Amino acid sequence: MAKKHRRLPKVINKVINKEKVNKPFENEYYHEPGTPPGTLIIDEDAEQPNIFLVDYNQTNLTHKQIKHPEECSNYLDTESVSWVDVQGLGNKEIIHRLGQTFDLHPLILEDVFNMGERPKIEDYEDQLVIIARMVVPNPNHGSFYSEQVSLVLGRHYLLTIQEEPEHDCFDSVRMRIDKGKGIIRRQGSDYLAYSLLDAIIDGFFPVLELYGERIAELEEEVIVSPNPQTLKQIYQIRRELLQLRRAIWPQRDAINSLIRDSSKLISEEVRIYLRDCYDHAVQVMDMVETYRELASGLMDVYLSAVSNKMNEIMKLLTVVSSIFIPLTFVVGIYGMNFNTEKSPYNMPELNWYWGYPLCLGLMAAIASGLIFFFWRRGWLDNSFEINQK
Amino acid sequence: MAKKHRRLPKVINKVINKEKVNKPFENEYYHEPGTPPGTLIIDEDAEQPNIFLVDYNQTNLTHKQIKHPEECSNYLDTESVSWVDVQGLGNKEIIHRLGQTFDLHPLILEDVFNMGERPKIEDYEDQLVIIARMVVPNPNHGSFYSEQVSLVLGRHYLLTIQEEPEHDCFDSVRMRIDKGKGIIRRQGSDYLAYSLLDAIIDGFFPVLELYGERIAELEEEVIVSPNPQTLKQIYQIRRELLQLRRAIWPQRDAINSLIRDSSKLISEEVRIYLRDCYDHAVQVMDMVETYRELASGLMDVYLSAVSNKMNEIMKLLTVVSSIFIPLTFVVGIYGMNFNTEKSPYNMPELNWYWGYPLCLGLMAAIASGLIFFFWRRGWLDNSFEINQK
Amino acid sequence: MAKKHRRLPKVINKVINKEKVNKPFENEYYHEPGTPPGTLIIDEDAEQPNIFLVDYNQTNLTHKQIKHPEECSNYLDTESVSWVDVQGLGNKEIIHRLGQTFDLHPLILEDVFNMGERPKIEDYEDQLVIIARMVVPNPNHGSFYSEQVSLVLGRHYLLTIQEEPEHDCFDSVRMRIDKGKGIIRRQGSDYLAYSLLDAIIDGFFPVLELYGERIAELEEEVIVSPNPQTLKQIYQIRRELLQLRRAIWPQRDAINSLIRDSSKLISEEVRIYLRDCYDHAVQVMDMVETYRELASGLMDVYLSAVSNKMNEIMKLLTVVSSIFIPLTFVVGIYGMNFNTEKSPYNMPELNWYWGYPLCLGLMAAIASGLIFFFWRRGWLDNSFEINQK
Amino acid sequence: MAKKHRRLPKVINKVINKEKVNKPFENEYYHEPGTPPGTLIIDEDAEQPNIFLVDYNQTNLTHKQIKHPEECSNYLDTESVSWVDVQGLGNKEIIHRLGQTFDLHPLILEDVFNMGERPKIEDYEDQLVIIARMVVPNPNHGSFYSEQVSLVLGRHYLLTIQEEPEHDCFDSVRMRIDKGKGIIRRQGSDYLAYSLLDAIIDGFFPVLELYGERIAELEEEVIVSPNPQTLKQIYQIRRELLQLRRAIWPQRDAINSLIRDSSKLISEEVRIYLRDCYDHAVQVMDMVETYRELASGLMDVYLSAVSNKMNEIMKLLTVVSSIFIPLTFVVGIYGMNFNTEKSPYNMPELNWYWGYPLCLGLMAAIASGLIFFFWRRGWLDNSFEINQK
Amino acid sequence: MAKKHRRLPKVINKVINKEKVNKPFENEYYHEPGTPPGTLIIDEDAEQPNIFLVDYNQTNLTHKQIKHPEECSNYLDTESVSWVDVQGLGNKEIIHRLGQTFDLHPLILEDVFNMGERPKIEDYEDQLVIIARMVVPNPNHGSFYSEQVSLVLGRHYLLTIQEEPEHDCFDSVRMRIDKGKGIIRRQGSDYLAYSLLDAIIDGFFPVLELYGERIAELEEEVIVSPNPQTLKQIYQIRRELLQLRRAIWPQRDAINSLIRDSSKLISEEVRIYLRDCYDHAVQVMDMVETYRELASGLMDVYLSAVSNKMNEIMKLLTVVSSIFIPLTFVVGIYGMNFNTEKSPYNMPELNWYWGYPLCLGLMAAIASGLIFFFWRRGWLDNSFEINQK
Repeated sequence: MAKKHRRLPKVINKVINKEKVNKPFENEYYHEPGTPPGTLIIDEDAEQPNIFLVDYNQTNLTHKQIKHPEECSNYLDTESVSWVDVQGLGNKEIIHRLGQTFDLHPLILEDVFNMGERPKIEDYEDQLVIIARMVVPNPNHGSFYSEQVSLVLGRHYLLTIQEEPEHDCFDSVRMRIDKGKGIIRRQGSDYLAYSLLDAIIDGFFPVLELYGERIAELEEEVIVSPNPQTLKQIYQIRRELLQLRRAIWPQRDAINSLIRDSSKLISEEVRIYLRDCYDHAVQVMDMVETYRELASGLMDVYLSAVSNKMNEIMKLLTVVSSIFIPLTFVVGIYGMNFNTEKSPYNMPELNWYWGYPLCLGLMAAIASGLIFFFWRRGWLDNSFEINQK
Repeated sequence: MAKKHRRLPKVINKVINKEKVNKPFENEYYHEPGTPPGTLIIDEDAEQPNIFLVDYNQTNLTHKQIKHPEECSNYLDTESVSWVDVQGLGNKEIIHRLGQTFDLHPLILEDVFNMGERPKIEDYEDQLVIIARMVVPNPNHGSFYSEQVSLVLGRHYLLTIQEEPEHDCFDSVRMRIDKGKGIIRRQGSDYLAYSLLDAIIDGFFPVLELYGERIAELEEEVIVSPNPQTLKQIYQIRRELLQLRRAIWPQRDAINSLIRDSSKLISEEVRIYLRDCYDHAVQVMDMVETYRELASGLMDVYLSAVSNKMNEIMKLLTVVSSIFIPLTFVVGIYGMNFNTEKSPYNMPELNWYWGYPLCLGLMAAIASGLIFFFWRRGWLDNSFEINQK
Repeated sequence: MAKKHRRLPKVINKVINKEKVNKPFENEYYHEPGTPPGTLIIDEDAEQPNIFLVDYNQTNLTHKQIKHPEECSNYLDTESVSWVDVQGLGNKEIIHRLGQTFDLHPLILEDVFNMGERPKIEDYEDQLVIIARMVVPNPNHGSFYSEQVSLVLGRHYLLTIQEEPEHDCFDSVRMRIDKGKGIIRRQGSDYLAYSLLDAIIDGFFPVLELYGERIAELEEEVIVSPNPQTLKQIYQIRRELLQLRRAIWPQRDAINSLIRDSSKLISEEVRIYLRDCYDHAVQVMDMVETYRELASGLMDVYLSAVSNKMNEIMKLLTVVSSIFIPLTFVVGIYGMNFNTEKSPYNMPELNWYWGYPLCLGLMAAIASGLIFFFWRRGWLDNSFEINQK
Repeated sequence: MAKKHRRLPKVINKVINKEKVNKPFENEYYHEPGTPPGTLIIDEDAEQPNIFLVDYNQTNLTHKQIKHPEECSNYLDTESVSWVDVQGLGNKEIIHRLGQTFDLHPLILEDVFNMGERPKIEDYEDQLVIIARMVVPNPNHGSFYSEQVSLVLGRHYLLTIQEEPEHDCFDSVRMRIDKGKGIIRRQGSDYLAYSLLDAIIDGFFPVLELYGERIAELEEEVIVSPNPQTLKQIYQIRRELLQLRRAIWPQRDAINSLIRDSSKLISEEVRIYLRDCYDHAVQVMDMVETYRELASGLMDVYLSAVSNKMNEIMKLLTVVSSIFIPLTFVVGIYGMNFNTEKSPYNMPELNWYWGYPLCLGLMAAIASGLIFFFWRRGWLDNSFEINQK
Repeated sequence: MAKKHRRLPKVINKVINKEKVNKPFENEYYHEPGTPPGTLIIDEDAEQPNIFLVDYNQTNLTHKQIKHPEECSNYLDTESVSWVDVQGLGNKEIIHRLGQTFDLHPLILEDVFNMGERPKIEDYEDQLVIIARMVVPNPNHGSFYSEQVSLVLGRHYLLTIQEEPEHDCFDSVRMRIDKGKGIIRRQGSDYLAYSLLDAIIDGFFPVLELYGERIAELEEEVIVSPNPQTLKQIYQIRRELLQLRRAIWPQRDAINSLIRDSSKLISEEVRIYLRDCYDHAVQVMDMVETYRELASGLMDVYLSAVSNKMNEIMKLLTVVSSIFIPLTFVVGIYGMNFNTEKSPYNMPELNWYWGYPLCLGLMAAIASGLIFFFWRRGWLDNSFEINQK
């Protein structure tokens, strides 16, 4: 049976965002329906996995890049905290051996390697699996990279699995371990897991900062010079915020259940720190919702602003037409060829001494009257006002 | 008393989707109000039922197509797992005999044969009835076939009843049984039920893939060239996603209650697998909601884009009118017939040596001024811009 | 003190639906504020009550039309099930005597006779009161009649009170009792109550069928030929679906509390049947919500379609104006009266040999150029396209 | 320190509703931030308080208008029910003495005299405080007066405090006490409190009746002749229904907590009556929500109807322009002055014998063709249709 | 490692509100992701902290401005209530020493100095931390200043930390302490905390008053003279109300958990007062939501009003064009140069005795007819009506 490995459509990227910066939907794989549970599906194009091991306690610190997953096994049961960080998922064999080394349940393995899972917590007695989604700002395009990170927490080890080697937000945690900064070296693997989760959640803020800036720019543009490009961008922002919401919402729930459920792998002390992390997740959600409301309000403003522009255009057309159409009618009258010789009533004006000047005067009067009429209505002012803005 | 069997209206198909690809509402039957409960209503036009039996344990495997439902009874009480798969509902007698063979409560029978039921779980001590809705993508039209599947789970058997013989998503499960792949042959009927449910839920992903693609195409179209056809399609997508939501929402609840309620027919081990299935159902729901929001955002974009187009049209009209109406007025003036001989003030221009060239020059000046005015306002550029896109 | 009996306004009927087919708000009476609880308010214009008694057990069956409510009392305490069906509420005295015969709490009486109550369940130890709302399709107008039905369930009797004698959906239940069809004759009064409730809930489906058809028609109309009549109908459908929702929502809650609360008047067996009835209520609600979303989507489509039409109109105007206004300017030029004799520069074209043909040719060239320009932009095609649809 | 007493802005009244009929926001006072709790703030402009005492039991009835609050104290501890009704809040001293007489907690006093409190229940052991909001229809303007009523329920007394002497809906309760109608004279102070609450809730129905009528009128107007006045009124209705919702929503919750919480001041029997009152509150809420949805639907209809009107206007403009602009071009041609003597190709038509009639015929043909074209498109019919409606 | 301290974008201020009055987003700082918990980040530009100490009991009162945080320690453990009020956060060292003096958990310190936290309650056994948000009206711009206030409540002391020295709403509390007004001097630190919280919540009312006024002004403007400025302001109000909602919503939850959770630092008596404070928070939320609905309704009204204006403009254009275009056609006819001498059918009107007057009469008739037609349709009236409003 051919079990294929498929990606969900890169929905909008290929269309709106031709440079393919932000790939919110791209990472969503799904199994062929009916695939047995626990089936591992490896994306052939994915990056080859790099495995890094950091083993530390309050006094010692070991750094290592690892070739064979089995090398880890020496470290796992020692009292020191072992952090095994796998970056890239492109090698089926290594991943299988990794699963054996860490004694992972087949469903864990499936979740971990099935990119596009919803963030969640799974509690398997001796292991706690946290599926999270990490975002990293992409400042060139004002959007973000999004990547799934899985954390498998054991008594004395933490296994983290990232989709790609680039763009993670764990550098500062690594540095705290290296430099022995903070209390991280004195704490267990649960504190390490908390630190990484905290870094993931805090990683949303710089992304939101970019959206804040993009919204601020659009707010100006939408009133001053609404154009189809603006429309495209508002839609784009709404779509991307939808992605962010999908990422943060279940993450908040997951952290909450970490706090509430009494897994023996998480100490009371770390639970207090997790409360802080939960607060930040709520704050991120708050901001995402606020930005979504702002973006949706912008759409209304856009529609209204376009209608306003149309009003201005119509006003101009109406002013021009209303002034010149009557005048054209008047000049049309004196272009008629009624025979003035046949009767004194046939266009005697044509033969008046002051005929032409009077006619011009009449037209000037009409035009002035109409201009005054429009000025009184404020149509002329408005036209200028919009220009100045 | 004439108890009729009626279909709910094929609401939109006949109108919008003339090829009748996707029949979201078509399968919804309802009883004449007041029909006694448990009444079986057989659609005369429905397909004749085909009955397939698969009986397996870890070592043996029997395949059979069955004519008379009674043939099943030998298999039901053996330790081996018996999967009886009924496809098509068009024969009242056979269905009655099926009900007797499996000892089904009249209400079960009614639910099973009343197409258009809401997905749900019913727990009858010795039998667990799961009403589910299966969707299969229809790639030609970017939509889906939808079909009700009922699962009756007993101690050692599973009865599945499908509306139609075509389009199911159980092939890969059948293959796993045939080839002894995975752990399915070592497990009981509850694991089989889980496998089928999982296949049903995972069957939503390819359907969503199609919608992702349709939305991506519309996203391009709606800004570049909005037209009534686009409008129709956005509405159509919203309507079909509504159908998907109606299908997946209660399914999620049903799986959840399967996990929580302590039916003795479901083993603890299978419950863990069901949690995975539940996660997928939540993910499907998430995606349906996201797509619905995107589609609803598209409607806003459409309206705005149409207004934009109107602005462009009005700009063109205004530019043309504003330039030529004053010019026409000028030429009208010199078409007047004031008698130049009666007075030196009557249109002396007509007799000037440079009269005509001056007049043409004046008009060229007016036109240039107006064109400059519109160019400054950016109206001329915009018109081109839209063209280039 | 004059306690008046007032109807809520027939809000929309008198306006939109001049034939007064559907009276969703008409039946809503309310008491003068401050009226003591239990006050009976009889509508003088209401129909005189007809009282029907059916008394049955597995073997016997009595049918009777009753004049005096007191006649019922013989039947109420016997083991056989007595169904007293009151149709019409127009006689205060009879209703009082009915209350005494059945020993009804004053608040029950008030609820029962206060048309426009919210569907609900009230549990008074020996009696269970169910206030329900019955809808019957009105196929001529695609809408429905709506009527309050109250069920008072006692140990061996069921009292049902309907607002009007016409339009009920209990016929099939009556027939099942008459013909001894199904298990109804073997069961108690609680099963009878269930059967009627089930008939009431199932009575929503034919009504929804009508709305499905109306929506299907509007879906076609709204894109092909949107007009004020369409708008009216969309609004009307939304309003009527709002009514249906108000009717079904509390009914579902009421049935749910019937299932959960442990009234001793409802047997376990009937509770299972009620679960089925509850499922149908949920399904009705689902469909009402789906239709509401469709109708609300139609409003968006309508607005967009009207804007589209406007675009088409404006395109035509712009095409016609843009072609003819410049041409009119050209002919205006050669209508000027500059004196060709005063100077060789004054309109020499007028005296050219090929002047007129050249002028016509120029205009033909301008017109062709503009037509080509509009054709390239697709404006001309679009105009035809809309026509063909 | 100057503690000022300020009113919230009379937001919309002063603008939209210049006659100041309905003052939904006017009654909302607030304390200067930081004011100590329990501070009494007396509005100098408010009405001087009138105090009425009714003391009754099954046999006796005393009516009295009271000058000094202290006069009440004789009645409070007797077994008979004493109803002290204070109308108007404009005298600080009397209110203080009232607080002392009834031994009110300072926070009660603050709540009672702080107009604009949210309806709520406060349970202070020996006293139960109910803050409610009463509405009275104002038929001249189709809106309502709104007033805060506080009920302080003690063992044998009920203190009610109303903002103003006019407009209450307690008359019928007073009459029931006077005439000994119903069971009110046989019951305690809790029943009296219920009766007043019931009168307050039922007082919403006549108000809703007015809104029903206003909506019905607008439904006609919005489609037939939408104008800015309609828009204003739809907005106004939405705003006022928002006020009603703010009044009824917490009231429902308050009644619900009265039923659930086991205050010893409310007897079991009265609790049953309160359930009825709760049902009415839910019904009011239902209707308010329904009206709000109707009003919000009306806004959509309005926007669509205005677009429709615009379509009609544009059609007329387009028809007129499209017919006359080409004709004007034709007459312009034959107004050109090409010299027919210089060449036989220069406008020979001018010298044809049938030139003029042919020209008129050509123009008639063009006009007919265009009229036919527009007639086929249905533009001409539509214009009349709208007129007839 | 360079840990930077960044501000979230001042999103909208810099654009819409160039004067930077209201800085709703400005105060939101965030940590570099991965920063260890408890890291203190000091804004170099922030104001230098001023520390004020008030120590009081029923008889004594000490006021002091403090240089070194350590000076406080003498006061903290005495029975008298010590209120230490820190204003400004710009000095890292002082803040560190403050943390040591009060023995604050590192996470408390982080929360307190991380401006932009969500309002919340944290319970650390001996200390209760309340993070609140204070708003102060900015009457010049109709908006508000927003500032984070943290309250650390201990057994006998209260530490409050404000972002800036200006704009707080605690003056009246200070005065009550100074003058011994109310019961504040007799109560403990929990009552002081309540008083400040109460002042914070009540501080929302004057801000809402400003918004009420701005909405009232916009309600007039939006119907009478909608312009882009109006649009801008509606959007601005919606955005600012979103800010208020974000501030009040979690505050309500925090107060609620203060009431429910049984912290031993809050006495039963103060809990009763907190209930009052909670009611006010709910009322603020209510008003914010109401204003938000009004503002969102205003956006609809704006769009409709703009469409109305467009209708008026189009009507004028259509009236002018429809009257003068036919007349221009008529004068065009008699401007044709058909040779009247060649045939009696060539424009004989030109030679009629009454030709010109008849022609003028015809045109007058046409114009009158059209004017009558438009008058009947009510177009002329409407145009004036709008003017008068």
